Amino acid sequence: MEGASVVGVGMTDFGVHDQPLPELFADAAFEAMDDAGADADVIDAFYLGNAMGGQTESDTHLAPTLASHIGLAGIPCSRFEDACATSSNAFKHAVEAVRAGTHDVVLVGGVERCTPSTGLETPEMTAIFASASHRQYEQPTGLTFPGVFGLLTTRHMHEHGTTEEHLAEIAVKNHANGTLNSRAQFGKETTVEAVLDSPVVASPFRLLDCCPFSDGASAVVVANAAGASTLTGDPVTVAGVGHATDVIPLAEKADLTATQSARDAASQAYEQAGIGPADVDVVELHDCFTGAEVLAIEALGLVEDGEGGPASARGETALDGRIPVNPSGGLKAKGHPIGATGAAQIVELVEHLRGEAGERQVEDASTGLAHNLGGDAGTTIVSILEVAR
Amino acid sequence: MEGASVVGVGMTDFGVHDQPLPELFADAAFEAMDDAGADADVIDAFYLGNAMGGQTESDTHLAPTLASHIGLAGIPCSRFEDACATSSNAFKHAVEAVRAGTHDVVLVGGVERCTPSTGLETPEMTAIFASASHRQYEQPTGLTFPGVFGLLTTRHMHEHGTTEEHLAEIAVKNHANGTLNSRAQFGKETTVEAVLDSPVVASPFRLLDCCPFSDGASAVVVANAAGASTLTGDPVTVAGVGHATDVIPLAEKADLTATQSARDAASQAYEQAGIGPADVDVVELHDCFTGAEVLAIEALGLVEDGEGGPASARGETALDGRIPVNPSGGLKAKGHPIGATGAAQIVELVEHLRGEAGERQVEDASTGLAHNLGGDAGTTIVSILEVAR
Repeated sequence: MEGASVVGVGMTDFGVHDQPLPELFADAAFEAMDDAGADADVIDAFYLGNAMGGQTESDTHLAPTLASHIGLAGIPCSRFEDACATSSNAFKHAVEAVRAGTHDVVLVGGVERCTPSTGLETPEMTAIFASASHRQYEQPTGLTFPGVFGLLTTRHMHEHGTTEEHLAEIAVKNHANGTLNSRAQFGKETTVEAVLDSPVVASPFRLLDCCPFSDGASAVVVANAAGASTLTGDPVTVAGVGHATDVIPLAEKADLTATQSARDAASQAYEQAGIGPADVDVVELHDCFTGAEVLAIEALGLVEDGEGGPASARGETALDGRIPVNPSGGLKAKGHPIGATGAAQIVELVEHLRGEAGERQVEDASTGLAHNLGGDAGTTIVSILEVAR
Repeated sequence: MEGASVVGVGMTDFGVHDQPLPELFADAAFEAMDDAGADADVIDAFYLGNAMGGQTESDTHLAPTLASHIGLAGIPCSRFEDACATSSNAFKHAVEAVRAGTHDVVLVGGVERCTPSTGLETPEMTAIFASASHRQYEQPTGLTFPGVFGLLTTRHMHEHGTTEEHLAEIAVKNHANGTLNSRAQFGKETTVEAVLDSPVVASPFRLLDCCPFSDGASAVVVANAAGASTLTGDPVTVAGVGHATDVIPLAEKADLTATQSARDAASQAYEQAGIGPADVDVVELHDCFTGAEVLAIEALGLVEDGEGGPASARGETALDGRIPVNPSGGLKAKGHPIGATGAAQIVELVEHLRGEAGERQVEDASTGLAHNLGGDAGTTIVSILEVAR
């Protein structure tokens, strides 16, 4: 099996964008292709992550459509949908394809618009997001995603004594990181008091515990050795990618706070990379709600089970902490244009591993981990990137 | 690179189904797993084709949801969307994964509901289908898919003298084949006169030139040699899979009647299989409209360019003709539950190559070809299956 590397990265600002999807995506794709030194004729395949384009703006068959718009017509194009893990799924398949030699160079993209730029307001968008919960058993109850993660987090509070203050500290950290990221949707700090004073969305989450609706695009160029040898980008090695699922719906899960798919995907990725959690220098993870970050740092083995809240409050995951988590600002502050989120995590890690992350650079980072979760904790994809130091 | 084979197949009747997607899909999946002799614990990954579940019935994140429903929770699950080529795209990725040894046994599925069982009537469903045309350049004109293929076919009539009678002969053939297929949505014959007397949908297509809206599910078990050795199903070799795209929108195509992506995908598949069109014994192709069958048999090299209409009228593609096309009844008579269509073409070919196709058996068939087209002729996937004779 060949190795795989990320040879180029690009992304738009996350926030509100009025361009149609092909134009929005082109901004990220051309940046990634330029970064890789990849002309259109060296791209062998295009793997797209877009979660909801059909529902939000009547736009499907998007992989070949976007490819055609950026001059790639002809090559095989595939759209992946895996709820919020959508472009990580595309990334995983690209890594597998170049490792196998099926393709030498694959462009992986993610794009989504979730703001009123689509013509849809928050209630309609919330209902569309809820299509990723269980159609027969969850949607009829009125459960939407703040509720899904509220249930998981409430159980964690019950079992482990996690508090609303612990959760608020995570929002404060990620907002602080976001102020150092010019592409973040929220470039302003917040405080524990402001979080706890914000209105309840779905208990225990208040407005400032929740990530926003966002528009944005991201892209990465993935290559094997043969592909990378034709490119000029500074390569970062993909040391492991794990992908696991869990039983759906929530009511059937053996353990509500384990997020078992994350544990299984992390275990696969660590094994492929030949490392453990203590070897990771920087983490981008799926903090769609502050409570999701608590569950994720435990599932990834970065802290002991039950310690996610207190460890966060102690600053262990801060930019200058023991293990920096979400230096980009995370979904919470950077934003969460669903299909773009997974590939954007890879973009952020690559910038840290290259030493190009500017004010938010994690010093001497040589191993990065991305954790991207889909649906009601039904899917997780964990990717580990490395550079030699 | 390892070989790949199809070791088990299953599908539901195509027509109207009231079950939710997980139950509908389970009927096809369990049939395919039983046919392969595959218990849940030997399935390494699940690749799903579903094109429009978010739009039609608020159901996304479907790959892990369906997997969980049939006892496969845990394994990596991916949903592919490629308009009408959706489950062929999933099949292609499964073939690539087992060839590479990434997985040994992959369950490929397709499922879709497009009838009023979803609560949506024809005008709403037509609009949803149209999301696979170009959002900025085609949808605003009111173009829907009968119009897309009407434009391509009208150009073919202009260039080559293809007539409405030629088209009607294709409908007559596929309806006749459908009467021999108990799973077909339309089990009744039609006549040239009936087709030509049916109301115009989008010129030159009349109602009986068009495939129906359908519900249905299909599934195939794909394995490499290591995987197949653990199974008891009668394997059929995957000799080649080609996948190509074309420029989108229609207005930018160099040649409206070439369906260039089909030519490119066919060329790849023939090359992989080491055969040419004359070696193919049975074909399942994407006859969403009768005119699409004319374009496809030319693009696949089964007839000379311009001869698609007359050759069809002469019976060359009939069940007892030179090269039987759509023995299942095709999309026209068997039905077209979008995400299920591609995998269902594989099911049909496997039954012929095993000699298990009953009354519609193509005698001594040892090489079968499937052609599945997506969007405004922007994607085509061509698969070639073989058995030794």
